[in-house]
Amino acid sequence: MTVTLLFKSDNDRPEAWVPALRQAMPELDIRVWPEVGNPEDITYALLWQPPDGVLGRCRNLKAILSLGAGVDHLMGDPELPDHLPIVRMVDPSLTDGMSEYVLFHTLRYHRDVPYYEACQRERKWHMLTPVMPQERRVGILGLGVLGADAARKLAALSFDVAGWSRSPKQVEDVASFHGTDGLAAFLARSEILVCLLPLTPDTAGILNAELFAGLPEGACLINPARGGHLVDDDLLAALDSGRIAGATLDVFHTEPLPTDHPFWDHPKVTITPHVASVTNPKTAAEQVAANIRRAEAGEPLPNLVDRTAGY
Amino acid sequence: MTVTLLFKSDNDRPEAWVPALRQAMPELDIRVWPEVGNPEDITYALLWQPPDGVLGRCRNLKAILSLGAGVDHLMGDPELPDHLPIVRMVDPSLTDGMSEYVLFHTLRYHRDVPYYEACQRERKWHMLTPVMPQERRVGILGLGVLGADAARKLAALSFDVAGWSRSPKQVEDVASFHGTDGLAAFLARSEILVCLLPLTPDTAGILNAELFAGLPEGACLINPARGGHLVDDDLLAALDSGRIAGATLDVFHTEPLPTDHPFWDHPKVTITPHVASVTNPKTAAEQVAANIRRAEAGEPLPNLVDRTAGY
Repeated sequence: MTVTLLFKSDNDRPEAWVPALRQAMPELDIRVWPEVGNPEDITYALLWQPPDGVLGRCRNLKAILSLGAGVDHLMGDPELPDHLPIVRMVDPSLTDGMSEYVLFHTLRYHRDVPYYEACQRERKWHMLTPVMPQERRVGILGLGVLGADAARKLAALSFDVAGWSRSPKQVEDVASFHGTDGLAAFLARSEILVCLLPLTPDTAGILNAELFAGLPEGACLINPARGGHLVDDDLLAALDSGRIAGATLDVFHTEPLPTDHPFWDHPKVTITPHVASVTNPKTAAEQVAANIRRAEAGEPLPNLVDRTAGY
Repeated sequence: MTVTLLFKSDNDRPEAWVPALRQAMPELDIRVWPEVGNPEDITYALLWQPPDGVLGRCRNLKAILSLGAGVDHLMGDPELPDHLPIVRMVDPSLTDGMSEYVLFHTLRYHRDVPYYEACQRERKWHMLTPVMPQERRVGILGLGVLGADAARKLAALSFDVAGWSRSPKQVEDVASFHGTDGLAAFLARSEILVCLLPLTPDTAGILNAELFAGLPEGACLINPARGGHLVDDDLLAALDSGRIAGATLDVFHTEPLPTDHPFWDHPKVTITPHVASVTNPKTAAEQVAANIRRAEAGEPLPNLVDRTAGY
């Protein structure tokens, strides 16, 4: 029996993905959007931001596979079939890439790099008293696959790491907080706050004035999750007041970030163009093939989206 | 019997060191330069860049303790007593701090951060194809305590790490090169080159045009060792030709770096003011006390300088 996969993304290049998928699963019939052929042939869909209605026309779909770790990019489709399993992308290179980003930007604030960059511009030789990582409190919002990996790698470098999640979670060497009741104590100790939450109706706009007010004065924010987590104007106000000393943003409400957005030339804002972690076709295609084989064999799928939780 | 320690440094603050030393060894009689008292009382000296002749006057010295991991700052003293043991500073916080610096600046080049910083200045949203750490070849010149620790931590993040040392050394998950014969092959694979060598007559000026010519085109250099390792004009020429794409320098021939030095506003040079790793009085004072107790008990001292090798 033929297994047919629809590939659709405006961010991921089919020139890289199609050969990787063919190598991982030679028998796969791959249809790259918009060359779908008969939509009823399609049994699996590998997607990033599919246009509304595409999935509704594929009546023989068995599973939806997300090209990203998050699935918010497809949960808004009103015709999303509610009986189908949706699989999040979990791939070692995606996880490693995100942890690299988090480590780098945490070290950047921990080591006062923005200060030393300003010194170089002024030809000023001045040393700040260094802080040991044991004395630097880092907070990770979200302890899923990405949050837990970043937390572990920061703890391995001796940072004093805490994590916050909706439901209780345990990560070795990481202080654990959870739920609405645990948020205030978590924020009060987070000198560097990293957001790695999924974007759901519950977490949209969570990075807002009220949350910033709970951080220590002069905290730093790193957001490589989703632009929808952040209330942009609240961040600008918190930067102006000094409540937040610096913010690193990889994701935005509108991407590419519009050229007239005040973040671009804000001296306390570091912008990266949604590159914190990029799904690597070579390694991820193997995960996709393994999941299709599991589904075809009637085996349970890993990393399934909980439709009620929305991630 | 009284144990008397001379403390002399222009970089390390006695206000932090004296209380830390008193806590680690309450019976210690501490003399802070220039309040030496009778030089013949002095039995140990904890030093950074002692003025020539100071050590010659301390006739009852039993050991010299360096405030830094390197000892080049005191090897030039013509009156340095040649029978005395010299102990390098080896302290976990010093090692961790150096590895933090190396990890940060390696990730900075690995993740194309200078490119994205330039993009932000131009309000340009553009993504480069990411490189996985497994495909990024990092080379560490020097596999002593600092080099080996940095190499291990880079390997733990999946970088393809090699090390070069004078004599053969083995570090887990790190490709090992040694001696003059091994240098060319090591350089040819080092996309990011980190210098963590001791400064000796053999290594002075090792970062020169000939070495740069052996690196891959567009390699990056990180030097947190000593300014004396680098031939400044050769680096400027290599940056201009594109042989070296970027250099991060923490140490200089003259410190503070003179305000008219061309490194300050070179677009491809990142300057930090000798802050890669700073000896922490709290943890290091315990190492000093432990070494003094070993010497008083007639036990062998760790981390002794080999006078012939010069480190």
